[in-house]
Amino acid sequence: MAYEFKAVRRVEFSETDMAGIVHYANFFRYMETAEHGFFRELGYSVVMDQFEPAVGWPRVHAECDYRQPLRFEDEVEIHLLVSEKKSKSLSYRFKFYKLNASPRVEVARGSLTVVCVTKQADGRMAATHIPKAFADKVEVAPAELLA
Amino acid sequence: MAYEFKAVRRVEFSETDMAGIVHYANFFRYMETAEHGFFRELGYSVVMDQFEPAVGWPRVHAECDYRQPLRFEDEVEIHLLVSEKKSKSLSYRFKFYKLNASPRVEVARGSLTVVCVTKQADGRMAATHIPKAFADKVEVAPAELLA
Amino acid sequence: MAYEFKAVRRVEFSETDMAGIVHYANFFRYMETAEHGFFRELGYSVVMDQFEPAVGWPRVHAECDYRQPLRFEDEVEIHLLVSEKKSKSLSYRFKFYKLNASPRVEVARGSLTVVCVTKQADGRMAATHIPKAFADKVEVAPAELLA
Amino acid sequence: MAYEFKAVRRVEFSETDMAGIVHYANFFRYMETAEHGFFRELGYSVVMDQFEPAVGWPRVHAECDYRQPLRFEDEVEIHLLVSEKKSKSLSYRFKFYKLNASPRVEVARGSLTVVCVTKQADGRMAATHIPKAFADKVEVAPAELLA
Repeated sequence: MAYEFKAVRRVEFSETDMAGIVHYANFFRYMETAEHGFFRELGYSVVMDQFEPAVGWPRVHAECDYRQPLRFEDEVEIHLLVSEKKSKSLSYRFKFYKLNASPRVEVARGSLTVVCVTKQADGRMAATHIPKAFADKVEVAPAELLA
Repeated sequence: MAYEFKAVRRVEFSETDMAGIVHYANFFRYMETAEHGFFRELGYSVVMDQFEPAVGWPRVHAECDYRQPLRFEDEVEIHLLVSEKKSKSLSYRFKFYKLNASPRVEVARGSLTVVCVTKQADGRMAATHIPKAFADKVEVAPAELLA
Repeated sequence: MAYEFKAVRRVEFSETDMAGIVHYANFFRYMETAEHGFFRELGYSVVMDQFEPAVGWPRVHAECDYRQPLRFEDEVEIHLLVSEKKSKSLSYRFKFYKLNASPRVEVARGSLTVVCVTKQADGRMAATHIPKAFADKVEVAPAELLA
Repeated sequence: MAYEFKAVRRVEFSETDMAGIVHYANFFRYMETAEHGFFRELGYSVVMDQFEPAVGWPRVHAECDYRQPLRFEDEVEIHLLVSEKKSKSLSYRFKFYKLNASPRVEVARGSLTVVCVTKQADGRMAATHIPKAFADKVEVAPAELLA
């Protein structure tokens, strides 16, 4: 059972904006870096086409609080924690740390709720149960880590 | 006094992802399209370098709830509503409508809180009062519109 | 028969980088804005799923020469010109003009070659003839415009 | 003296488009990943503010030829080779390899020309000599590697 994953990225030039800092929308791309690494670590891709029918994970809620800016070439750790596990959805908490600071500093905190879906005959997506093989590997993080 | 702005965009190919829909992080870029149009309509740029010292508007909170996907070439209206006005910050509500549907359908709802800052002598940003000339033009939207 | 299309965009904050100018990769996204507008004007989408089998238009070559920077809120015209028309591919020339300058100034020039493809039984893409109904509407621009 | 650098990335979900492949504009962002890694390996940042005056490296030409698509979670090696070194500019060749194929396959090839500039008193950029300390560390790659 796993409840966390840590991804590290270096801020790219193309992720900055004219204010000289990482554009705020990019934190949501960083969240996915950690989420997809979490899936891979469990032996899965977020594009779960090994199941029949294939399942996907659209986002239904996303948010982020920004405390300090990230700049070009900063090293950022994205710490994913599973904050909620339902039969058809997962929620994550994300803590963003700037590693090239001593001590490291938490620069942002976010969250994401994703729903497990399959494509119906009419092409629309419908929520479905998380495949058991995957669900069995995921658990909610301890409360003290989520705080 | 103004409390709203509507921007219309057509979804670009580069904004979609392999799920065939607009990548969720792009809704935060769409929010800025409406915000910056709102500023321009009031005679300002979000890069307020006409003030002395220059002021900027970093984001401190962003969130979005996704109801239905947007696809390539969909026409989307981003309706910005001022939801809160403080001495040093503004909050907006955003309602996203897919216009090429009959009737139009609300596909997402978001919010953003931005803080008015100036750069201090040490290069760090510090919150400051919203310039009066601009603040005088902005008011909170009626409660029934924000609902 | 059509050989050109002009799209106009306003530079978005999220398209700038820490150098204060539009990130160079975004000019390639701007090219598509004009290309897809060109297709729509002819009654088509670049996602041509009305044909049987459906055809797509992957890019095989892209290039751009940058002369002057574009900045936040600049108005840019992207002028697409068809520079070559083969049985299975099209090439475009793009001229980028900054409109909020007097006189307007050409800030960049690019080109793109795209191939008409269908998906084969094994899932791979193979070049195919441009559907006649579409090809009949497209012609190469006069040499003096391409210069 | 150095003439090459290899960066490895894993394709992110947000880098794909509705065709299920990496959007072509992102290859230009990948080129910068390798370029900036090359600079760092030599002890520099592409944002060279340690020099007086500070120098920057705007792009004046960029191009890419696409042979095969990259997909989500593919591992891509971006191999930068210095192809030309002038007093005020550098050119690179880029070879993109998909590593999770056996044998690895070259999926794209690109090039970039960047100019060393300083900001003049009037705010405009002007080409300047590459700082000697940095130039002394860079050489053109052997012809057989560039082929």
